[in-house]
Amino acid sequence: MGNYDIVILGGGPAGVQSALSARNSWPGKTIALIRKDEVPMFPCGIPYVFHTLKSVDENILPDTALEKSGVKIIVGEVSGRSGKILHLADDREVGFDRLVLAFGSLPETLPIEGSENESIYTVGKSYEYLKRFRKAIDDSDDILIIGGGYIGVEIADELSRARRLVTIVEMMPSLLPNTMDPEFGDTAEEELEKQGCKVVTGIKVEKITGDGKTIGAELEDGNRIDADIVIIAAGYRPNVEMAKKMWVAADPEYGVLVDEYLRTSAPDIYAAGDCVASRNSFTGEYTKAMLASTAMAQGRLAGSNLYGINVFKTFNGTLSSFSTKVGDTALAVTGLTETQAREMDIGYFVGQTDTVDHHPSCLPGARKIRTKLVFARKTHHLLGAQISGGDSVGELINMLSVMIQNKMTDMEIDTLQFGTHPLLTPSPLGYSVINAAVNGILKWYHK
Amino acid sequence: MGNYDIVILGGGPAGVQSALSARNSWPGKTIALIRKDEVPMFPCGIPYVFHTLKSVDENILPDTALEKSGVKIIVGEVSGRSGKILHLADDREVGFDRLVLAFGSLPETLPIEGSENESIYTVGKSYEYLKRFRKAIDDSDDILIIGGGYIGVEIADELSRARRLVTIVEMMPSLLPNTMDPEFGDTAEEELEKQGCKVVTGIKVEKITGDGKTIGAELEDGNRIDADIVIIAAGYRPNVEMAKKMWVAADPEYGVLVDEYLRTSAPDIYAAGDCVASRNSFTGEYTKAMLASTAMAQGRLAGSNLYGINVFKTFNGTLSSFSTKVGDTALAVTGLTETQAREMDIGYFVGQTDTVDHHPSCLPGARKIRTKLVFARKTHHLLGAQISGGDSVGELINMLSVMIQNKMTDMEIDTLQFGTHPLLTPSPLGYSVINAAVNGILKWYHK
Repeated sequence: MGNYDIVILGGGPAGVQSALSARNSWPGKTIALIRKDEVPMFPCGIPYVFHTLKSVDENILPDTALEKSGVKIIVGEVSGRSGKILHLADDREVGFDRLVLAFGSLPETLPIEGSENESIYTVGKSYEYLKRFRKAIDDSDDILIIGGGYIGVEIADELSRARRLVTIVEMMPSLLPNTMDPEFGDTAEEELEKQGCKVVTGIKVEKITGDGKTIGAELEDGNRIDADIVIIAAGYRPNVEMAKKMWVAADPEYGVLVDEYLRTSAPDIYAAGDCVASRNSFTGEYTKAMLASTAMAQGRLAGSNLYGINVFKTFNGTLSSFSTKVGDTALAVTGLTETQAREMDIGYFVGQTDTVDHHPSCLPGARKIRTKLVFARKTHHLLGAQISGGDSVGELINMLSVMIQNKMTDMEIDTLQFGTHPLLTPSPLGYSVINAAVNGILKWYHK
Repeated sequence: MGNYDIVILGGGPAGVQSALSARNSWPGKTIALIRKDEVPMFPCGIPYVFHTLKSVDENILPDTALEKSGVKIIVGEVSGRSGKILHLADDREVGFDRLVLAFGSLPETLPIEGSENESIYTVGKSYEYLKRFRKAIDDSDDILIIGGGYIGVEIADELSRARRLVTIVEMMPSLLPNTMDPEFGDTAEEELEKQGCKVVTGIKVEKITGDGKTIGAELEDGNRIDADIVIIAAGYRPNVEMAKKMWVAADPEYGVLVDEYLRTSAPDIYAAGDCVASRNSFTGEYTKAMLASTAMAQGRLAGSNLYGINVFKTFNGTLSSFSTKVGDTALAVTGLTETQAREMDIGYFVGQTDTVDHHPSCLPGARKIRTKLVFARKTHHLLGAQISGGDSVGELINMLSVMIQNKMTDMEIDTLQFGTHPLLTPSPLGYSVINAAVNGILKWYHK
């Protein structure tokens, strides 16, 4: 099958990014990318293959960039490694000098009775599976989604917009419980309900019952929700079985262990993306957050550290930068939420503001925007931000993310210059980020 | 008329921001704001009072925040100062302990023959003037705008969207010549032309001729453009006459001289906004850029430095962060353009990318987005950024502005974590800012 200087194992975003960064950093090297699927998917596009995208085919991650970069694409299933040779299930072999593991994650299942019913789908990522999944949804009337994290919420939103009958059940008291504070989860709930979606929170599913045709969820309060199809959106787990086959050290729950240069326990083998046991950038503790923002940074760093580490190119933990859209409202978060700061016992104070994203606010298209900032109590550094509002929230959160990564304080934010425009942003006097910072400063300094 | 601890002279954004920051910083002090106009306007909303806003009344800057903060509003014309007393034209007097000058700027006129014709309007900022101005435009058929800076372009856009017959003339070869590089000015031109606006660039207006009813501009090539109304959008100049009346040192062209704490030459008198002789944050030279982003930063700093300067709260020069929208395209810039870097003889290299602001790019609402970054040749610091695309550009430019203000380099940008979402941002693999930075890095390191 041939030998390559650099081999990437995995065709998702982390794999592709690792390959492209390797190409940019090491122009003379030969590079191959091995993936299971003939046709790879945009993972973040998956919730939108059920309605907004006309078909699963519209969600294909194109190979253009890899091909332009002269990266050889090998489709096949890797079954093991001996030394610097990867063994494929069909007996092919691929030799490498440097290897990047980017084999990703698998959907979690629910450890409850009845979860093997054939009308239950998890949110898998392969093209063929998603085609079957979409067909099954198209053929169903009542749809039940178990799990109110962002994948569950995005699919509930997508199917509600298609005017399907959807119920979503989350055991925690609000939606997006691991991602955003309750008031933002409640905004997601309102948006879903506006579209006719039924939202049930604060209650656990005890078991799933029923035959192949109609199934249902029995809740812990004794109630029952019937459906034609059940979607389990209970998060993802790193593909640790692959870690074993690759002979690299891994935590069974969090995935492949890496250092700050993305090096694994095995020489010349790096890892990036969902398969990595990433640590929270504030606490250094393992995190279950699996986000494109993390995978991309890791891919860029792994690719550029392959031959000779760059002391400057280190991964310093997952910041958890993330955005989504529910109904007509965009929601976004970066860094720590108030809930997380409290649970981690990090001293904090909050600054918040509600404003409008056009000025004067009577301009057509103006939308309310809510900003919540979490600052470190003693040092005043920005620890986290959450926003809800119009579509500009998607880039606004990245500005806040840049602030956290530059270790900015409330007072430093207050001295920055921000551009504003009537049709594009809040008013200069009402600029959301400044006013939320000032709100925090005032609470803290004048109390 | 009474004495106040803090008096603000001027009711525009810089004045209001100074008053609000003074209130936040010095809760026990009495504060008054003196302004000429009974009814103040949002300056950046002015281009939109001709069509998008139903009337000039919709552009009123509300007094709510000042009133809530207990700031006394005094309407009157200040005619002079002796010691710590301001004299008003109607013989009232207002005493102060600290004074902030925020008396702003006045529209430039054109030093050409015929520019006093009564059918010529400059873009003034007072409520009564704007009501007359809107009426004159409503009563005209052919509209000629002289000056293709952002105010001229925004008014041309506004009136073209209202399906009016508009011609805009700019003497430089492309629109927005002092603000953005030619390729972005050309985008503005295309957007205006798409809406039926006639754009004439690279040619000077020699003189304005005609009677009260129909007037016209004679161009240097001998051609003539007839119109019912001529709008001169030739920029603004600081109100230096007021600086004289206030006995503070001022440059006749650039305005009131201040130090980094916004202190003028007179003790206990500060200044903020368009009336200040601001310096470019890179070169330290005076700049004519008059932007809300500068005025707001200065207002916040002046207000908080009034009683005891805060060594941390310094104004370090105008960054020129700015965004606008022409037709369906948003345009934005922060820091230096390529043209400016070349003119200032600053060594630079450019990184650029074209991408799409949704992913997959077939998603409804997806828009092309062009990003151009200018980096310092030797130190690799980000010096400037320009973007065109959908509405998210308005906040994206502020992220880039935060990067510049944190003195980030190309390689540092490449290691950042950015959140992405199919409906809100480019794809993780095609994230605009990263890919433009990488484009610059590749050009520079591998050449």
